[in-house]
Amino acid sequence: MQETEQGREPGRYGFEEIAANQLEAWPNAYPDRDYVTHFEIPEFTCLCPRSGFPDFATIIVDYVPDKNVVELKSLKLYINAYRNRQISHEASTNAILDDLVALLAPRWIRIVGDFTVRGNIKTVITTEYAIPEYHGPRPELRRFMPAIG
Amino acid sequence: MQETEQGREPGRYGFEEIAANQLEAWPNAYPDRDYVTHFEIPEFTCLCPRSGFPDFATIIVDYVPDKNVVELKSLKLYINAYRNRQISHEASTNAILDDLVALLAPRWIRIVGDFTVRGNIKTVITTEYAIPEYHGPRPELRRFMPAIG
Amino acid sequence: MQETEQGREPGRYGFEEIAANQLEAWPNAYPDRDYVTHFEIPEFTCLCPRSGFPDFATIIVDYVPDKNVVELKSLKLYINAYRNRQISHEASTNAILDDLVALLAPRWIRIVGDFTVRGNIKTVITTEYAIPEYHGPRPELRRFMPAIG
Amino acid sequence: MQETEQGREPGRYGFEEIAANQLEAWPNAYPDRDYVTHFEIPEFTCLCPRSGFPDFATIIVDYVPDKNVVELKSLKLYINAYRNRQISHEASTNAILDDLVALLAPRWIRIVGDFTVRGNIKTVITTEYAIPEYHGPRPELRRFMPAIG
Amino acid sequence: MQETEQGREPGRYGFEEIAANQLEAWPNAYPDRDYVTHFEIPEFTCLCPRSGFPDFATIIVDYVPDKNVVELKSLKLYINAYRNRQISHEASTNAILDDLVALLAPRWIRIVGDFTVRGNIKTVITTEYAIPEYHGPRPELRRFMPAIG
Amino acid sequence: MQETEQGREPGRYGFEEIAANQLEAWPNAYPDRDYVTHFEIPEFTCLCPRSGFPDFATIIVDYVPDKNVVELKSLKLYINAYRNRQISHEASTNAILDDLVALLAPRWIRIVGDFTVRGNIKTVITTEYAIPEYHGPRPELRRFMPAIG
Amino acid sequence: MQETEQGREPGRYGFEEIAANQLEAWPNAYPDRDYVTHFEIPEFTCLCPRSGFPDFATIIVDYVPDKNVVELKSLKLYINAYRNRQISHEASTNAILDDLVALLAPRWIRIVGDFTVRGNIKTVITTEYAIPEYHGPRPELRRFMPAIG
Amino acid sequence: MQETEQGREPGRYGFEEIAANQLEAWPNAYPDRDYVTHFEIPEFTCLCPRSGFPDFATIIVDYVPDKNVVELKSLKLYINAYRNRQISHEASTNAILDDLVALLAPRWIRIVGDFTVRGNIKTVITTEYAIPEYHGPRPELRRFMPAIG
Amino acid sequence: MQETEQGREPGRYGFEEIAANQLEAWPNAYPDRDYVTHFEIPEFTCLCPRSGFPDFATIIVDYVPDKNVVELKSLKLYINAYRNRQISHEASTNAILDDLVALLAPRWIRIVGDFTVRGNIKTVITTEYAIPEYHGPRPELRRFMPAIG
Amino acid sequence: MQETEQGREPGRYGFEEIAANQLEAWPNAYPDRDYVTHFEIPEFTCLCPRSGFPDFATIIVDYVPDKNVVELKSLKLYINAYRNRQISHEASTNAILDDLVALLAPRWIRIVGDFTVRGNIKTVITTEYAIPEYHGPRPELRRFMPAIG
Ligand SMILES: [Ca+2]
Ligand SMILES: [Ca+2]
Ligand SMILES: [Ca+2]
Ligand SMILES: [Ca+2]
Ligand SMILES: [Ca+2]
Ligand SMILES: [Ca+2]
Ligand SMILES: [Ca+2]
Ligand SMILES: [Ca+2]
Ligand SMILES: [Ca+2]
Ligand SMILES: [Ca+2]
Ligand SMILES: [Ca+2]
Ligand SMILES: [Ca+2]
Ligand SMILES: [Ca+2]
Ligand SMILES: [Ca+2]
Ligand SMILES: [Ca+2]
Ligand SMILES: [Ca+2]
Repeated sequence: MQETEQGREPGRYGFEEIAANQLEAWPNAYPDRDYVTHFEIPEFTCLCPRSGFPDFATIIVDYVPDKNVVELKSLKLYINAYRNRQISHEASTNAILDDLVALLAPRWIRIVGDFTVRGNIKTVITTEYAIPEYHGPRPELRRFMPAIG
Repeated sequence: MQETEQGREPGRYGFEEIAANQLEAWPNAYPDRDYVTHFEIPEFTCLCPRSGFPDFATIIVDYVPDKNVVELKSLKLYINAYRNRQISHEASTNAILDDLVALLAPRWIRIVGDFTVRGNIKTVITTEYAIPEYHGPRPELRRFMPAIG
Repeated sequence: MQETEQGREPGRYGFEEIAANQLEAWPNAYPDRDYVTHFEIPEFTCLCPRSGFPDFATIIVDYVPDKNVVELKSLKLYINAYRNRQISHEASTNAILDDLVALLAPRWIRIVGDFTVRGNIKTVITTEYAIPEYHGPRPELRRFMPAIG
Repeated sequence: MQETEQGREPGRYGFEEIAANQLEAWPNAYPDRDYVTHFEIPEFTCLCPRSGFPDFATIIVDYVPDKNVVELKSLKLYINAYRNRQISHEASTNAILDDLVALLAPRWIRIVGDFTVRGNIKTVITTEYAIPEYHGPRPELRRFMPAIG
Repeated sequence: MQETEQGREPGRYGFEEIAANQLEAWPNAYPDRDYVTHFEIPEFTCLCPRSGFPDFATIIVDYVPDKNVVELKSLKLYINAYRNRQISHEASTNAILDDLVALLAPRWIRIVGDFTVRGNIKTVITTEYAIPEYHGPRPELRRFMPAIG
Repeated sequence: MQETEQGREPGRYGFEEIAANQLEAWPNAYPDRDYVTHFEIPEFTCLCPRSGFPDFATIIVDYVPDKNVVELKSLKLYINAYRNRQISHEASTNAILDDLVALLAPRWIRIVGDFTVRGNIKTVITTEYAIPEYHGPRPELRRFMPAIG
Repeated sequence: MQETEQGREPGRYGFEEIAANQLEAWPNAYPDRDYVTHFEIPEFTCLCPRSGFPDFATIIVDYVPDKNVVELKSLKLYINAYRNRQISHEASTNAILDDLVALLAPRWIRIVGDFTVRGNIKTVITTEYAIPEYHGPRPELRRFMPAIG
Repeated sequence: MQETEQGREPGRYGFEEIAANQLEAWPNAYPDRDYVTHFEIPEFTCLCPRSGFPDFATIIVDYVPDKNVVELKSLKLYINAYRNRQISHEASTNAILDDLVALLAPRWIRIVGDFTVRGNIKTVITTEYAIPEYHGPRPELRRFMPAIG
Repeated sequence: MQETEQGREPGRYGFEEIAANQLEAWPNAYPDRDYVTHFEIPEFTCLCPRSGFPDFATIIVDYVPDKNVVELKSLKLYINAYRNRQISHEASTNAILDDLVALLAPRWIRIVGDFTVRGNIKTVITTEYAIPEYHGPRPELRRFMPAIG
Repeated sequence: MQETEQGREPGRYGFEEIAANQLEAWPNAYPDRDYVTHFEIPEFTCLCPRSGFPDFATIIVDYVPDKNVVELKSLKLYINAYRNRQISHEASTNAILDDLVALLAPRWIRIVGDFTVRGNIKTVITTEYAIPEYHGPRPELRRFMPAIG
């Protein structure tokens, strides 16, 4: 089910929202604390750069915001926009890190790309960024939800 | 990872194989027995007919072949071909049933579409076909693998 | 996150949509088959008729449609509308059954209200309706998703 | 079930207790030890500040008391009081931290808000406070109970 | 935590409520349907008739009410009253069946006593009653909650 | 089942053994090593100091013995003796710590009281003692058995 | 831990009790009902008839008593007595069935021997007996406890 | 580890035992009962008939013997012998059924081939044989062990 | 299913690809970051050096690349090539480490060989390499997928 | 199943092999690396020193070899030899440590004895040895297999 909404073109607004989306930052209301926001995004899909066949992953973000937090709907649409891109496991995971670092300048951030099995091998990429002299929390990776399906 | 193969156009052959694919039937080598073939296909994705946003599901097939069995690679490509279609949960599940019945004329077949949550509601569609006077096995639905991720 | 939408009053449209909602039926596109639609709705909450304290449940619907299917967004809003009602476990589970039978006239339907522990006792109510001479599927109760949290 | 009690207005006392409640501190009977109290509160619900639709979470508290401990029934009623508030995930988690720090002046405290999926993304907020020069236990987050449902 | 209540003797009212309790029946508001109420009561304890040492069990009740349903708080207090009784596994499970049949005259009822290990052997007793010519639901035993602890 | 034994008063010896029991220390046969003994005791029950209603917990002990180890049967009877005591969660967990420290003078010991839900909140108390300058093992808390039931 | 008891030879009484034991029947206090008693006995061990190496199993008993029930301590000692016997998987499972049928003349009984892996193959033997014209319960096999370890 | 044995050629006897093996039948010591023997064999591997790449499966056998039972070591070696055969999922599962029916003439037998994912699709084949007029047990498929790894 | 491909000898190309394969390194596109790549390869099999009987394992690789990453298809074929080698648990795990260190000169790498039970004992080998003065991530071992089967 | 072998006395060779066994050391082929070997041995059984009744445990060994590794079959037979010994939980766990230290002079070794419940208490003993100035791996305890049964 996707909700039908007033003021939206039936059957098309999803495409348009994904195409027009920009990752959006909002002010962090608690900048004095090193708190951690964890996201699990189980519906990532892209296309293999070599074959064009689909790939699937859960993307897990953990970050300690500084001045800004990421707006959730823009993050969802940003993830949706990988659907028709041809990109490798390493490149997509690191690109999400680069884009969120550029947007947020967080104190610390870690992206995990947990991809489904290909060629009988499962691949999980973990990549991380911290500001110099960062001494805040770096929580061990943890899944709070089961995989999609 | 998608395997690079000789004689294939780099970066494009997946698109071409999916576009050109026809569901293919092979002769059933054991037509005298009512045996059950179970498939779990955790990487189904399509687009919502109303919004255009992506939907995700695991498709579970159980069937008792008569004269023919489905060829696995053609089934995979057939499922891949839903990626850019706008189709509802009920329609995709019943369409897979219709297509496999048309191809195989099986003695019995059941399709389950186990979709991810939308609007805080999880939906699972179960649809079934049997030849008249069928008295063979109708096994209770069972998951042999965990969901993708 | 709840999505901010164009043409909606910021901070209020959820209240309005829930208050104005009517359960809505759509035509069943596959009336010739006895197929089963399963819903899990883990975010049910109401108020205890005796104390006013909140109660929580997962509502599980299984039904075989006849001429109509329930529209998903109207079902979500219908469930949301219990939030401020004072109603017992038995009454809410049976009321959902009555309302969906009245709306859909399904061939078969079962509602399970799986409530959280109160007074050190867990309560689960299961109630069911079928048309006379119904011989279609009555699947054993099954959970496809984990509980909320 | 909510217990009917003598001296309470039938059907209303829950509302009244929640409305009248103040978080209450009791003296810590073991102030010489850095011991940890862990609470899991799976029945948190509030309203989205942007849409008014309900949100759900499990709130997990771990703290090392100093002079005072929190009284459990007042904590339950405090959590109940979020039901009709419009508040974001980050704000509710940090507000619970602020309120318990103000009440208890604990040596160390951590609040986790483990929210249900919205927009296909699961969010978990973790926020923490310690007195200066705190060297006591900071246990890794751990769930002792399953989610509600 | 046990709630302190107005009009109750501090530290004693639990004893008094358990001692004074009578299992109580309320009218069934849905007597036209064969619906099932399932209870799980994980905090049963009694004393061994031979040694006096404590025994522990989860009691699971499934029943189809006729004219009456059991009132939940009276059921909790009834179960609490076994705490100081010396009674065997078979006797307690069958006694609960007898008492609920006498109170409710249900259409169908099943009691399961799922006791903890003694002498390296786990014992589970299942006992059932139905009115003559009963053809309603007899659901397979199912646990909706994990054991206590 | 509790074993009937020769030389014991039928139906009563459990009461007598519990009433007469003293926690008992035995010499540690391996005093040169810092080894860890872990106990899980899932059948703890006591009474709420405010209401008199029963409480239930699993008690988890981890300790590094010095000159003495605790005798297991005396520990079981010691735990049994809480059955009729009115004591809070914090007090029982810390009292077990105090009693075992007084008996054993261990190098390190940790007691966890993992109590069942009350008022919709689960409580787990963790309390610990070490001799000055202790540098031996302090293993992360771990459950080796499932909860009772 | 095995309890030291008065009137028993230290270090030896276990051997003597196992050697002297006779399976013992007690009168069934509820002969009018077809109720089911389920036992799980995870500490079965015997010796391979061909090699002499140890084998391990969980023995699961389900039965509907007629005039008699089995006494639990005698059942435990009976199971202990297999420790030094050389007997195959099929023979031990069927022998337990034969011995309990001979002792109890139950209405229905099922023995499952769930053996650990040998030669990379796991073996589970299920054997059953019923009196002629038995129409009482035959519950699906169910494990209520995890395996030993 | 594979055991080195006297009288065996070091490093080679496994090859020789597999090559020389014949499935072997032994007399059934309990021919008067319809008992079920369940085997799980998680270490099946063969080669794909089309590509030559390895396939992996767990083979699950359930059967009710008549005059004979299968000798376990010969069954293990028989399964080992598929390692270098090129055979499809359907063919291997049905061939195991054919070979055990030919050897044993069982009253009832079911073979399940639970293969690992290939081409993003999991396949499980279930095939069954019974003598005419068979009315004995046909237990629902059940896994008693986890998969290999 | 193994895919039939154009330009490949039917039934044979798998053998040829495995025989001809060389582990292949590709340039690391993100050499400035210490990111971790995790692989799980559940379909490892080799032969026991003493008996010739098959062994099975899941191989788990975690590494932090420096100038190069391993190409996934060449890794799969490299693992396939152990199928007919006689090699011990320790030797295969350490050989995979040696080969990947020689190929990649990674900053850090850990290989885990998680072998199935032999002689009633499960063996897991963990071996690790780091460049001198390495201070990057060394994540705790973690399984992201269930075992094969 | 225990394999019948040529050159062995039928029904007796297991006893003889266990009785004659000596723990055996083999040269470590990778002495330059601090790698970890993990064993899980779920079929340990011995006899209680006070009662003579059987005790059961899983023994978990983790060690970093120096010049020698333990030969697996001799380890299995060594464990089998506890079957008829009367020994406490602490003594058996520490004795296995002492014997393996004496045999292997490992760099680091940890033995865990995970015993089944006795007297309603589960006991797990963890004991460890390291050479002076050891700085190699000391992995957190981890179970790779489920318990026996
Ligand atoms: Ca790649
Ligand atoms: Ca950890
Ligand atoms: Ca739909
Ligand atoms: Ca009620
Ligand atoms: Ca079922
Ligand atoms: Ca937010
Ligand atoms: Ca940890
Ligand atoms: Ca009894
Ligand atoms: Ca308290
Ligand atoms: Ca046998
Ligand atoms: Ca079932
Ligand atoms: Ca095939
Ligand atoms: Ca069933
Ligand atoms: Ca080896
Ligand atoms: Ca002891
Ligand atoms: Ca850890």
